[in-house]
Amino acid sequence: MTPDTTGYLGILGGMGPLAGAAFALRLAALTPAAIDQQHIPTLLRNDPRIPDRSDARMRGGEDPLPYMVEGLRFLHAAGARVIAIPCNTAHLWYDQLCAATPLPILHIIDAVAQDLRRLGLAHGRIGLMGTPATLALGLYQTRLERHGYQCIVPDADEIERYCVAPIRAVKAGDLPAAVEPAMQGVRLLRARGADAVVLGCTELPLAIPHAQRAALGVLLTDSIDALARAAIDYWRQTPEHRQAA
Amino acid sequence: MTPDTTGYLGILGGMGPLAGAAFALRLAALTPAAIDQQHIPTLLRNDPRIPDRSDARMRGGEDPLPYMVEGLRFLHAAGARVIAIPCNTAHLWYDQLCAATPLPILHIIDAVAQDLRRLGLAHGRIGLMGTPATLALGLYQTRLERHGYQCIVPDADEIERYCVAPIRAVKAGDLPAAVEPAMQGVRLLRARGADAVVLGCTELPLAIPHAQRAALGVLLTDSIDALARAAIDYWRQTPEHRQAA
Repeated sequence: MTPDTTGYLGILGGMGPLAGAAFALRLAALTPAAIDQQHIPTLLRNDPRIPDRSDARMRGGEDPLPYMVEGLRFLHAAGARVIAIPCNTAHLWYDQLCAATPLPILHIIDAVAQDLRRLGLAHGRIGLMGTPATLALGLYQTRLERHGYQCIVPDADEIERYCVAPIRAVKAGDLPAAVEPAMQGVRLLRARGADAVVLGCTELPLAIPHAQRAALGVLLTDSIDALARAAIDYWRQTPEHRQAA
Repeated sequence: MTPDTTGYLGILGGMGPLAGAAFALRLAALTPAAIDQQHIPTLLRNDPRIPDRSDARMRGGEDPLPYMVEGLRFLHAAGARVIAIPCNTAHLWYDQLCAATPLPILHIIDAVAQDLRRLGLAHGRIGLMGTPATLALGLYQTRLERHGYQCIVPDADEIERYCVAPIRAVKAGDLPAAVEPAMQGVRLLRARGADAVVLGCTELPLAIPHAQRAALGVLLTDSIDALARAAIDYWRQTPEHRQAA
């Protein structure tokens, strides 16, 4: 007997690897399930060899697109039915990625917009934290403004101190060094009038532990959890994925 | 250009899915790396459709072996070079799994024995926590005794209360309900003279947060972290895996 185990949620991970694994973990943690067999079958390709997305966009570094396209092909051939990419900056290549695969790709910024509505915020001022590439190229601004939000963006120095520094610390596995600068970034955006702050790089939710978030006194939306919730919703609304379960 | 991205650490996960993802996360967290590209390329097949291992061994439930063998074939075909299985009970089928794949499979109990030595414990009394199948079939006892340790095993009622109950709560995503019974199990084994306690089911490390472990007053070895350390050691000592990096 060969069991039928096709039909996966495919995760194009590794950008970074801690964020890819944290997404898989939050996906399992947020899925309503009483036993193993009710969870979503998931395939995480956590490949950290994909060239740095910010380097490519900001400093002419190696193009990550061929690596990401190869990852999508791999996941498609392996039986993925839908793709989640737990890396905000990678969504700068979203259109090219969609063109390279017949599979639907969940969009992380749409997931965040959906999460803001889940938190009760249908409009308002959204403070953005993310990589310089994500923020400079307007990835969030364009899409959130289309959803009716206004964006508050830190300046280049602030991005360096409150976003890049904690992102780099998380990528190096030094979570304690990431906490304080990331929290300061949230406080800064709250002080500028943000109704909510987006942790718009998948390393940033790892910098601010869930237990410390309430004390920040502002709504936070976490791009890892937002994408996980979107993936769970998509999976439940698309029952043909579950036929092999 | 087609990037060469073969050469993965393959994870046969999904047993349970939270444990599989937690293993991928701890693997990334424990890997010494300054940037994404220094991490281990990992492929996590987090497939929760594998039938329950304890049910199969203790109550004649569906045999998980064909599903696990299919998972190994999948990981081999996908480019895995070595396999980690973050499920203790699955190691009851270790010999059959090894016979079904040309890839080396890290043994979780050997990883725990290695972790006990890392903690400075070369011999002594080891308290065991795990599934009824793992404990009744002597999975830990046989191997730890071979390494020179003596084992302290809870009785059937205690296994039900302090191991099965928290394992079930973790599988249902109810981590708060898992903490107290799992901690009580550790305290019980400490009171019976254990020099160290093994969290010998990959759900149990999720029941006892790292931050609360020091207060338990006994050495703890965590089968998720032990297997992650063994995988990192193996990867670093086997440089041909890294040729594609």
